[in-house]
Amino acid sequence: MESVSTASDRPCDPRCLLKSEAGVNEGNMGQGAVDFPVAVVLPAAGSGERMGLSTPKQFCTFLNRPLISYTIETFDRIPWIETIVVVVAKESHDQMLHIIHRFHHIKVKVVEGGATRHRSIFSGLQAFSESAEGPSSLPRPKVVIIHDAVRPFVEEDFLLKITLAAKEQGASGAIRPLVSTVIATTSEGYLDHSLERTKYRASEMPQGFLYDIIYQAYQRCSEFDFEFGTECLHLALQYSGTNAKLIEGPPTLWKVTYKRDLAAAECVIKETLSLSACLISGTMAETIELASKLQKDLAAHSMTLDLHPFVKGNNELLSKTRNFIQISASRESLSEIAEMVKVLEEMNHALLYPVVIIWVHLYMSEEPSLRQKPDELSSIMDLSTKAKQRNVLLYGIEVIHSKIPELWERSVERLSEITTALIRDRNPALTGQLLHA
Amino acid sequence: MESVSTASDRPCDPRCLLKSEAGVNEGNMGQGAVDFPVAVVLPAAGSGERMGLSTPKQFCTFLNRPLISYTIETFDRIPWIETIVVVVAKESHDQMLHIIHRFHHIKVKVVEGGATRHRSIFSGLQAFSESAEGPSSLPRPKVVIIHDAVRPFVEEDFLLKITLAAKEQGASGAIRPLVSTVIATTSEGYLDHSLERTKYRASEMPQGFLYDIIYQAYQRCSEFDFEFGTECLHLALQYSGTNAKLIEGPPTLWKVTYKRDLAAAECVIKETLSLSACLISGTMAETIELASKLQKDLAAHSMTLDLHPFVKGNNELLSKTRNFIQISASRESLSEIAEMVKVLEEMNHALLYPVVIIWVHLYMSEEPSLRQKPDELSSIMDLSTKAKQRNVLLYGIEVIHSKIPELWERSVERLSEITTALIRDRNPALTGQLLHA
Repeated sequence: MESVSTASDRPCDPRCLLKSEAGVNEGNMGQGAVDFPVAVVLPAAGSGERMGLSTPKQFCTFLNRPLISYTIETFDRIPWIETIVVVVAKESHDQMLHIIHRFHHIKVKVVEGGATRHRSIFSGLQAFSESAEGPSSLPRPKVVIIHDAVRPFVEEDFLLKITLAAKEQGASGAIRPLVSTVIATTSEGYLDHSLERTKYRASEMPQGFLYDIIYQAYQRCSEFDFEFGTECLHLALQYSGTNAKLIEGPPTLWKVTYKRDLAAAECVIKETLSLSACLISGTMAETIELASKLQKDLAAHSMTLDLHPFVKGNNELLSKTRNFIQISASRESLSEIAEMVKVLEEMNHALLYPVVIIWVHLYMSEEPSLRQKPDELSSIMDLSTKAKQRNVLLYGIEVIHSKIPELWERSVERLSEITTALIRDRNPALTGQLLHA
Repeated sequence: MESVSTASDRPCDPRCLLKSEAGVNEGNMGQGAVDFPVAVVLPAAGSGERMGLSTPKQFCTFLNRPLISYTIETFDRIPWIETIVVVVAKESHDQMLHIIHRFHHIKVKVVEGGATRHRSIFSGLQAFSESAEGPSSLPRPKVVIIHDAVRPFVEEDFLLKITLAAKEQGASGAIRPLVSTVIATTSEGYLDHSLERTKYRASEMPQGFLYDIIYQAYQRCSEFDFEFGTECLHLALQYSGTNAKLIEGPPTLWKVTYKRDLAAAECVIKETLSLSACLISGTMAETIELASKLQKDLAAHSMTLDLHPFVKGNNELLSKTRNFIQISASRESLSEIAEMVKVLEEMNHALLYPVVIIWVHLYMSEEPSLRQKPDELSSIMDLSTKAKQRNVLLYGIEVIHSKIPELWERSVERLSEITTALIRDRNPALTGQLLHA
């Protein structure tokens, strides 16, 4: 069997963690089942008025990256998806090309959209059309998935279900239970009647279609549909006679609509990034002891810490997580941190998600005069400034190894609390600080 | 005119800020218009299964306070609302009483709910019933508002609209545009048809009723309604013949349903709390100069800073915001911070929302040996530990007044960045730290 890069061999990726959290069996899930070409159309030409922001929501940024890049990443790492057509407004074309370049997205083709959602989707489909002339025409897929740029958390297993149902039935779509009762109103603004919730569902994204079916539907549909229509499944039914298979999707399909949803999306990513860390203990008895205390404490905060005496030269270890805690009793270890930052940069490990490094300096003496030399402070500040440019967030914490058990206990407790907070928050404003536990 | 405590004279409250942000004209908005008794029923007996948490969502905590307390607070501060009946599950009764006591909620009566939402609402309504015996019966309101415990951001002006429409029409309810297309499914899981979005609306909360109308509806409704019904407006229509007036509500009516919504709610509160701060400059030329630089920088981050040379003895000033930045060139100012913490505690100012104090220590000398004495570090740590117990979050930042313009510029820039981050994040794990700008 050939060694193919699949989503499943990138365990450090937040999206894979989401999936394994959901108890989904990993593996080459789509590789065997999908033996036909699949493409994606991502309409992203909207203006995002509802969000109350000047930037269209798909281009709003969190953790240094625009929302749409998270969505593209999802499809980028699924090996059985061949092409991603992103449809953007004319004025966003250059910005989109810049995003693709900056975050090393592959498989993406950018096309210009129309004034409405349906016109944009049709533009995206036309990129595959045989009648399209010139070198820009893409190979026609068997199945095309239509998804929203603002639903970044769709997972591979669900996309597979949608794709296979589309191949089988001609059309398929995600549904969710209604969250509110749906009511019909009179023209005067009074209640006419309420719908029985159990008989109806909310139609969500992704949806899947045999390319020929959806392309035909768009070729045949009316100007009214293009202007006011909202539902691709409806077009497939009306103009291609295909009743879509409906599949209940997970709550993670939710759509980023308001500003508050961006905060929620950032929180989901941060939480997933904080599930594990690599703890580098050194080889001194005291640093190893502190490391195992920390490991125990952080397990109580749902963070799994992998303990290693050192990581130098072990790039596989570095690629497994995006959080590192280095415990050391000597200040020389700062040069090891500098080396780690360099290797992480060479690996491009912080390209998509910020990496956190926490340098824990254990002082074996309680003598104040020996602690925190100003030059140490400026070393970590300088190093962190450089690291931040590479999306690596470096923080320092100093711990004094007190002989008084209560003081020592309290310090370890505070160390756990601060470490958890720094990893969870990934706050770029606090890098380079030397905190006190 | 009597001096009555209304929502409008508590300008430091996040909810009022939300309202004034929305451009709503403040004032005694309900005082004149509502000359009849109004009560609220808050069903909160749900188990919150959808959230994927062991705690029911209404009792989930952010910023040290359970979600339901934020919702109760909203009604607590509206003077024309007389009573709030909170309906909880039997097992949550004591917890609810504890919350009411701890956060000084007034007007609240706790009753036990039933197994379904409709049974719980009926239990709430029965608390006002004339047939209720014993001293526990509450005076019957003219209008009763039914709301969800998990929609904390409802605003006074919208509640007023709902209340007045209920008085006029017998029933009223909030509606929102549909966010997804609603589709009817066949029994085999295929698309039957999709509804035309423009003809339908999502029914949300709050809803308002003439008490007699909704009470009668519940008395007459069937066991089937009690078990499977979802819509109070439907009961009012079917059993009391009242067509509710429907009023479009703002997006802030949204319901906290999933874990990610808690993050979004926390973010909304934090953002509102970060709109303004009180900047205490001292009287030295250098501290005043730094203060005005900071004021300018933070304005660019949408934070309004009110500049004052000192706040001592000015409790009105203290009550206006929940963020304080004290700039000082002497370490004696730590005792002023201690005094401020004490006054804030006496005022109960951090009861509902955490207060942030940032102590900025400006060092006039660049000589390293003069900076950061270990005893200073332990003073701020000790003081912050005590303050945190009172929900006051204290952080320190030291700035060196460099003679080299580029270094000084960079320090001020970093000071602005760190100050903004500390106020926005309100991170309890980082209190007591002395950061370096």
